[in-house]
Amino acid sequence: MAERGLLIVLSGPSGVGKGTVRKAIFEQPNNDFEYSISMTTRKQREGEIDGVDYFFRTKEEFEELIASGGLLEYAEYVGNYYGTPLAYVDQTLASGRDVFLEIEVQGALQVREKMPEGIFIFLTPPGLKELKTRIIGRGTDAMAVIERRMEKAIEEINLMQHYDYAVENDRVENAVSKIRNIIECEHLKVSRVIHRYKKMIKEL
Amino acid sequence: MAERGLLIVLSGPSGVGKGTVRKAIFEQPNNDFEYSISMTTRKQREGEIDGVDYFFRTKEEFEELIASGGLLEYAEYVGNYYGTPLAYVDQTLASGRDVFLEIEVQGALQVREKMPEGIFIFLTPPGLKELKTRIIGRGTDAMAVIERRMEKAIEEINLMQHYDYAVENDRVENAVSKIRNIIECEHLKVSRVIHRYKKMIKEL
Repeated sequence: MAERGLLIVLSGPSGVGKGTVRKAIFEQPNNDFEYSISMTTRKQREGEIDGVDYFFRTKEEFEELIASGGLLEYAEYVGNYYGTPLAYVDQTLASGRDVFLEIEVQGALQVREKMPEGIFIFLTPPGLKELKTRIIGRGTDAMAVIERRMEKAIEEINLMQHYDYAVENDRVENAVSKIRNIIECEHLKVSRVIHRYKKMIKEL
Repeated sequence: MAERGLLIVLSGPSGVGKGTVRKAIFEQPNNDFEYSISMTTRKQREGEIDGVDYFFRTKEEFEELIASGGLLEYAEYVGNYYGTPLAYVDQTLASGRDVFLEIEVQGALQVREKMPEGIFIFLTPPGLKELKTRIIGRGTDAMAVIERRMEKAIEEINLMQHYDYAVENDRVENAVSKIRNIIECEHLKVSRVIHRYKKMIKEL
């Protein structure tokens, strides 16, 4: 039986650049993990392929999957469902391949509940200066706007505690290299490799 | 106050090449950690400098330190004591610098007891083939010798469970690169950086 693959979850505040970092990761050569294809009820656009860009499903089919526990996580967004089919993730992990998810923070919390053994990476905005800029804005914003941004920043930071790693998105290539390192290091964890060594000993 | 540094402990079975890997790590440019200097009661050799190669102490001084809990770990080896002074490690960590220890497995277990938050890396012999070769020998060994080697290998693998990471010493440069990655990744752990982000928010 193959050693179970790792589930890698990349998430972070909206606007932090998760999608860009994920795309850059998958453009690298020698990636040893599978990208999990999302399922959606939104209309298939021209050029999009079912099972490649998304799994396109009807609302009824999607809701059946929700009811039967067939989704690792899901959310509704402007009237459409988006989610991660559990079966694909589970089968890929069981075959020994790592699976990479890039999802919103609320979805990531759902995954943490169902697969706590996953590796959860929180992408953060680059440093104090950037955070200040995002919150204070260009100096022309009303106090209410600034306060709302403050609250959002505090909420975001509080979500970080549910994650294993925090990676600053200062430059895309730095974030990519850190995320690839994290995956490599996680494969070196004793808890993941010790049974392989024990098996070696038995087979001697 | 500076963020506390990380304690990195490299250990592994005798003969696996810990010393070679450690030397190669410290020959790399841009190392951001301090090597912990050992204390010993053995005679200072020509060319050795007290406080650089070792802290040279008398047997009485060393035993006083043992009694007062001033050693992070120690062992006796052919009539001489070898150990790691706690004060140096603790002060360096408190100043925010990482400390790198390369020690024997028995010493590493003592450190795990006293500083469980350390990063414990177990260097392993390169793969099944090598392990088999080491155990079976060149085909001329008596059954008793082979059995003793078997027992030792099993003991060694069982020690691995007290460590966080297992790094195969297949080639020194691979082991070095993996160990450096581990240190980098450990600095990205949410548990280590979240207070920095919380501080940011407070200071806004």
